[in-house]
Amino acid sequence: MESKKITIIGAGLIGSLLAIYLKRHGHKVAVFERRPDLRKAKISAGKSINLALSDRGWRPLKDVGLEEELLKMIIPMKGRLMHDMKGNLTFQPYGKEGQAINSISRGGLNALLMNRAEEMGVKFHFNHKCLDVNFDHNLVELEEKGNTFQVDSDLIFGTDGAFSAVRASMQKTDRFTYSQTYIPHGYKELVIPAAPSGDFAIEKNALHIWPRGGYMLIALPNLDGSFTVTLFLPFEEAKHSFENLNTDEKVVAFFKEAFPDALEFMPTLLSDFNAHPASSLVTVKSYPWVQNKTMILGDAAHAVVPFYGQGMNCGFEDCYELNKLIEINGDDWDTTFRQFSTSRPENTNAIADLAVENFVEMRDKVGDESFLLRKKIEAHLNDLYPDMWIPQYSMVTFNPDMGYAEAMKIGKLQKKIMDEVMSVPDVTENWQNLDFEMIMGDLKELLKKP
Amino acid sequence: MESKKITIIGAGLIGSLLAIYLKRHGHKVAVFERRPDLRKAKISAGKSINLALSDRGWRPLKDVGLEEELLKMIIPMKGRLMHDMKGNLTFQPYGKEGQAINSISRGGLNALLMNRAEEMGVKFHFNHKCLDVNFDHNLVELEEKGNTFQVDSDLIFGTDGAFSAVRASMQKTDRFTYSQTYIPHGYKELVIPAAPSGDFAIEKNALHIWPRGGYMLIALPNLDGSFTVTLFLPFEEAKHSFENLNTDEKVVAFFKEAFPDALEFMPTLLSDFNAHPASSLVTVKSYPWVQNKTMILGDAAHAVVPFYGQGMNCGFEDCYELNKLIEINGDDWDTTFRQFSTSRPENTNAIADLAVENFVEMRDKVGDESFLLRKKIEAHLNDLYPDMWIPQYSMVTFNPDMGYAEAMKIGKLQKKIMDEVMSVPDVTENWQNLDFEMIMGDLKELLKKP
Repeated sequence: MESKKITIIGAGLIGSLLAIYLKRHGHKVAVFERRPDLRKAKISAGKSINLALSDRGWRPLKDVGLEEELLKMIIPMKGRLMHDMKGNLTFQPYGKEGQAINSISRGGLNALLMNRAEEMGVKFHFNHKCLDVNFDHNLVELEEKGNTFQVDSDLIFGTDGAFSAVRASMQKTDRFTYSQTYIPHGYKELVIPAAPSGDFAIEKNALHIWPRGGYMLIALPNLDGSFTVTLFLPFEEAKHSFENLNTDEKVVAFFKEAFPDALEFMPTLLSDFNAHPASSLVTVKSYPWVQNKTMILGDAAHAVVPFYGQGMNCGFEDCYELNKLIEINGDDWDTTFRQFSTSRPENTNAIADLAVENFVEMRDKVGDESFLLRKKIEAHLNDLYPDMWIPQYSMVTFNPDMGYAEAMKIGKLQKKIMDEVMSVPDVTENWQNLDFEMIMGDLKELLKKP
Repeated sequence: MESKKITIIGAGLIGSLLAIYLKRHGHKVAVFERRPDLRKAKISAGKSINLALSDRGWRPLKDVGLEEELLKMIIPMKGRLMHDMKGNLTFQPYGKEGQAINSISRGGLNALLMNRAEEMGVKFHFNHKCLDVNFDHNLVELEEKGNTFQVDSDLIFGTDGAFSAVRASMQKTDRFTYSQTYIPHGYKELVIPAAPSGDFAIEKNALHIWPRGGYMLIALPNLDGSFTVTLFLPFEEAKHSFENLNTDEKVVAFFKEAFPDALEFMPTLLSDFNAHPASSLVTVKSYPWVQNKTMILGDAAHAVVPFYGQGMNCGFEDCYELNKLIEINGDDWDTTFRQFSTSRPENTNAIADLAVENFVEMRDKVGDESFLLRKKIEAHLNDLYPDMWIPQYSMVTFNPDMGYAEAMKIGKLQKKIMDEVMSVPDVTENWQNLDFEMIMGDLKELLKKP
């Protein structure tokens, strides 16, 4: 393959993985990042502290040879562990025996990717802010310490996140379809520290959820025995909102009422609550992702809310899919860019919509008995027909060979059928006597329709 | 009412009408406009040359005392006159006897509004470009002839159109939900000049449509006997597209094939086609419209595609609705701003969606016999039940007391019922024997549901 001079804007998770993929093909790759080097500075890597890595993200990381390192960094979470108001626990597996999603440190994973990229010869430039991109001449305008300069390239990739500067330049071109949609909720990160013994204070191998209808608390384990706890709450216009939690007394009273069994393990609640901002949650969709020799991908092209645990996984899958096209098209980059930007958005739009829908499920329905029964029946269908009735969560999380759009489409049909099943009068007592063959037949029929 | 210092950004149709309304309440009103004064310079007023003024726009113009002047400026269009490929004509009235939409010059109407505003004491400043708005301190940063300066105000209104600078400043604030969505079609303005006698070359009192499925041509009359003709065509990726019409021969061949009876009256087709750009068509939605003491309205807040003829009318209705709130709330501007920006978007989102839907109807279905029968049956229902079955087009165009959202909701229910009616096997021959009372009863039933 002809060696190209490639500039990547953004050294986050997606930009760093993309750099590895491109370097592997022998290109000259430089990455410019607005922030300082997170391996040296004590800075937040932005957004959440830990993330749930699942199969769509794992596949490309394994593909570039990082599986061994990954295995040391993860804590498998085998299911959701729901905490009700009285502290009762209900466990709901994410998939089958052996399937799990993996809690991983964002900063740790990012450092791993940057280290590997540097070892391969990728050049990273930190504290460089992208000001603008000239698409006609493939020039990136950058600023470092008050000085501005231009970099010319054969190809430019924007992986600079939900508030992408590269995308902002694209927005100035004609016919750039774009949306940014905020949900009424924000999030705030809190902590359950490790127990004095160094052990995990609550169950280690689960994603904890305190579903409370209009809001929720979740917790993901960290390697050091702590949990990163995230409160999702409306900003305003609700009884319980960030706006209303404006005194220490109110914060404590709220946790006492809503999350008593979490509060007991949160000695630093007030200092964490007061130190961390309430951050907003946005869905970004854009089209087209390409202007001449410049392409955006990852959050820069399609940011999603975190409720399906797919933002990072989807961005890594972008790199994987792009690399497949590079291997097919070789030096014909125009074709690679065109194919990627026409085929991929269908899937990224689907996961964006699924993530918004899943918030309602997570914060509300997972505490509901009828919902748990529905999941149980679906799990049984999956046992009977392992290749034909796969729950939507599993299609999205554990079946990377199926695109998000296909998973969404099949999930909608399953929901339609399950709505009918759940309306059978004595379904709670007699669900085991359902005609599962007929239910499976219904799905097959629906799937045949165009 | 306490007199306020008010700054309006944008002296287009909406800004000029808003200035009149605000001046009427005794405020000090200054309007800053990026372009030169269109009353003095020979410039395009932006976008289309003529527009269809209907009841929602007429009401506020009458409200501010401009009806007499308006009557001299309009050409009523009583319905759609469809031209088929062979030049056969079909007329479809827009409403009842006496109802019409009105072709009017954008520039002429804008000048009328600016003149009236100036007479009342509004100050207009042309060639002033808005660079930024500081919402916390109510400061607008402006540029004139290379000099930048700031204007402070009690209240700021952004009526600077689909590519609003005021909205661009709002986009930099957190949690600003925003979308810009382009359709695959563009438009190009052409001309049918007046006949040598000075008469109209084709029927004067109609909106002419050449519906051709994937594209269409329309023509609206001007006072001087000419028609402004607009070609709507995909930019690319279609047999007939702007991309493919890249030689004079192809343009002429295309018109000969698709619009032969229009071509005959278009002696300047090629020079017009080559002189005018193909412009894009965008829908803009945004929320919230208010930041502190600054509000956006009109296209700046909610641009729509032109296929329901409601962009200007909707913007004028913004002014009318806002003025109603000002009269209720008096000096309590915070309440006026909050109420307007929470209640109005439901209606502007509805007309945005209806306008996109109506494009399919205009370019495709209006040439269809089954569609014309459907319209005939609906017109008959309207004759029988004039207050209860009002066609959606009439609700939107001739019933300003009903909001766009309500019109869309009722229209969807009517469509559901009419889909069933149109599936009656012998409906074409025997539509007059339909049980109209039952059909009306079905709509009443549907309307009762929440």
